Amino acid sequence: MRLFDFGVEIDLNLTKGVKTLKRTKNKNSKKIGKQTFVFQNEPKIFSSYSIVSQKEKDGPFSEYFYDVLSDTKFDEKTFEKAESKMFVYTLHNAIKKAGIKPNEIDILFSGDLLDQIISSSYCARLFDISYMGIYGACSTMVEGLIFSAICIDGGFGEVGACVTGSHYATAERQFRGPLELGAQKQKYSQHTATAAAAVIVGLVSQGIKITKACIGKVEDYGVTDSANMGAAMAPAAMSTLVQFFIDTNTKADDYDLIVTGDLGKLGSDLLRILMDEKGYHLGQNYMDCGASIYHHDQYTSEGGSGCGCAAAVLDAFILRKMEQGQYKKVIFIATGALLSTIIVQQGESIPCVAHLVLLEK
Amino acid sequence: MRLFDFGVEIDLNLTKGVKTLKRTKNKNSKKIGKQTFVFQNEPKIFSSYSIVSQKEKDGPFSEYFYDVLSDTKFDEKTFEKAESKMFVYTLHNAIKKAGIKPNEIDILFSGDLLDQIISSSYCARLFDISYMGIYGACSTMVEGLIFSAICIDGGFGEVGACVTGSHYATAERQFRGPLELGAQKQKYSQHTATAAAAVIVGLVSQGIKITKACIGKVEDYGVTDSANMGAAMAPAAMSTLVQFFIDTNTKADDYDLIVTGDLGKLGSDLLRILMDEKGYHLGQNYMDCGASIYHHDQYTSEGGSGCGCAAAVLDAFILRKMEQGQYKKVIFIATGALLSTIIVQQGESIPCVAHLVLLEK
Repeated sequence: MRLFDFGVEIDLNLTKGVKTLKRTKNKNSKKIGKQTFVFQNEPKIFSSYSIVSQKEKDGPFSEYFYDVLSDTKFDEKTFEKAESKMFVYTLHNAIKKAGIKPNEIDILFSGDLLDQIISSSYCARLFDISYMGIYGACSTMVEGLIFSAICIDGGFGEVGACVTGSHYATAERQFRGPLELGAQKQKYSQHTATAAAAVIVGLVSQGIKITKACIGKVEDYGVTDSANMGAAMAPAAMSTLVQFFIDTNTKADDYDLIVTGDLGKLGSDLLRILMDEKGYHLGQNYMDCGASIYHHDQYTSEGGSGCGCAAAVLDAFILRKMEQGQYKKVIFIATGALLSTIIVQQGESIPCVAHLVLLEK
Repeated sequence: MRLFDFGVEIDLNLTKGVKTLKRTKNKNSKKIGKQTFVFQNEPKIFSSYSIVSQKEKDGPFSEYFYDVLSDTKFDEKTFEKAESKMFVYTLHNAIKKAGIKPNEIDILFSGDLLDQIISSSYCARLFDISYMGIYGACSTMVEGLIFSAICIDGGFGEVGACVTGSHYATAERQFRGPLELGAQKQKYSQHTATAAAAVIVGLVSQGIKITKACIGKVEDYGVTDSANMGAAMAPAAMSTLVQFFIDTNTKADDYDLIVTGDLGKLGSDLLRILMDEKGYHLGQNYMDCGASIYHHDQYTSEGGSGCGCAAAVLDAFILRKMEQGQYKKVIFIATGALLSTIIVQQGESIPCVAHLVLLEK
C-alpha cells in the first residue's frame, strides 16, 4: 500500500460502479483508437521562428539555424532572464513573420524546464494574449502544438501560439550544478540546448497541416539515474508511437520522416530496440533531434536535450524541409522526463511522457 | 531595451504585416468578445472528491469537508510523496464515484506548485490515462476544468479529469524554509492549504454544467513582495472578471455567487476596490476561498492559498451547494502567482494570471 516503493502500487483495479448517468455520445467525435485525435478543420502552422546559441550553430544543422545569440546572456544580467528573453524574441519574430498583431492570437501556450515555468510566464506578461501555462519537460513544443490544434479545431479561437526553449546555463544550475562549479559530465548525460522557438498555428489557407495527434501516457520503467534520461524516456516514446501506429493502422514506412525530440544517441538506439520488440521497425527515415544537433567532437555525450532542442530543429529544419516539399508526412514526437531534483534525491525513478503530432504538407 | 527592468519593455507594437495568407473564418466559433468561450455541448462535472488536513477541517468549512488526513505524511516517508499520494487518492475516489473505469477518461490534466509539477506526474504514472501537465500555480483547477471542457466540447474525447492540490510542508520547504526552521510568518502572507481535489468532466445527462470560460492574460502591477501574493494576484482577477463581464454583457448581480480562488483577506479587499474603480461592484455574493478557509484564530495571516485551497472548496462546498440547488449560476475564478524563488531573488516583480469558468446547475 506504500505508494512510492516502486513496483508495489496502490490497488487501482476499480470495480466498475453502477452507471447511473446517461452518457451522451459525442456526435462529432474526433478520436480514433485509444489515444489518437484527428483534426478535421486543418489547423496549420503558418509561422515559426527560432534562435540558438553558437554551440548549436556549430553542429550538423549549421546551415539551417539562421539566428544565433551573440552572447548567451542576451544582454541581460542573469541566464534565467536571458532564457525568458529568448522566448519573447522568438514569439515576437514569429508573430511579425505571420503578419498578424499579437492580440489576434487567441491563446498562447508556453512552458519550460525552470521551476514554476518562469521563462514562459515572464514572457507572457509582455504580450496582450490569453495565456495557459503547460508543463511537459522536453515534450513541451508538441504539447503546445496539440493544445493549439485542439482549440482551433474545436472552435475556440482562430490562432494559437506556442513558445518554448531551454538554456544550458539555467538547466545546469537548476538540475545539476552551476557552471562555475566545473563539475564533470556524467556518463550517458545530455547537453541542454540553448535554443528557443515559437510556432503560430491557425485556420489559414497555406502552411504545414497538423492532421493528427496522439497524447501519451506516463511510462516509468524504473530508471533512477537522472543523468541517463534517454533510457528513461525511450519507453514513453515507444508507448506513444506504437499506440499511434495501432490507432491509425499504419507503420513506420508510411511516413517520410519520424522525428523524436531528444532521446539522444543511447535513447534513440533503445527506442529502435523497443520498437523492434513490438514488431515495428524504424528504418532510415527515423531521426532524433538530440542525437543529431551536435557533432561527436562537441563533447555533449549522448547529444542534446531541453525543450529548445526539438523546438528549434522543428522550426529550422523540419518545417523548412516540409515547405520545400522534401518531406510530406512527418511524425514529430517529443518526450519529457518528468523528474525534479528533490524527488530523485528521495530515491524515486523517473516517469516520462511522449506526445505526438502528425505534420502534413 | 533591457527586458527585465520593470516598466521599460521591449517594443511590442508590431507593424501589421501584409496578410498574404487567406484566413479561414471559423464557421462554428465558440468565442464571444475578447477572451470568453462558450461551450455548446454542455460538458458537465459529474464527479469530484477532495481531502484536506485537520487544519482545514477545523476551519469554517468544517461541516463540508468529508475526508480528512489523519497524518499529513499520509503514510509516506516524505511530504512530497504524501502530496502526490493525495492526488492519487482523490483521483481514484472521484473515478470510483463517477462509476467509470480509469481508462474511460480520455485526458487527465494535472498540475501543482512543486518544481516540475512532480505531484501531478507521479500521480499520472499510476493511471492508464493520456496525461497533459499544466501549470497555473493556484489557478490550476480552473485551468484544468477549461482544458477538460475545451477537449470534450470540441469532440476530443468524452471524459476529462483534473486533479490538483497543495501541501503546507512541501510549499514552505520549497518557497520559504523547511518547517523545522521555525521561521516567523511574514506580514500579509498566506498559509498553503494541505488539500487536494479531483474533478471529472464529461458528456453526461446530469451534473453541474460548465457553460463559459474566460482565459486570463498575465498581469503584473509591480509587486515584488513574494509574501504578499494577494496584492500581486488581485489585478489579474480584476482583469479577467471585468473582461468576462464585458464579453458577456453582464454584471456581478447576474450571478448567485462569485468565488475567487485564494486572494486572501487583503487580496479580496483589493479586488473589491479595483472592481469598483472599473464600475463593477462586488456585493454580498462575492467570496474568496482563501479568505474563508480558516478561522481568524487559526493564525494564517491573510488566509489560505495553494492549488488545493480553491479546488477543495470547489468540491466540498460550491459543487455541493449547487447540487442542492442553493446556487444556480456561479463564477469560479482562480488566480495564480507565477513566481519562482530564483526570479524573485533576482529582483523581479510577480506576474499573475486568473482563469474563470461559469458553472450552472
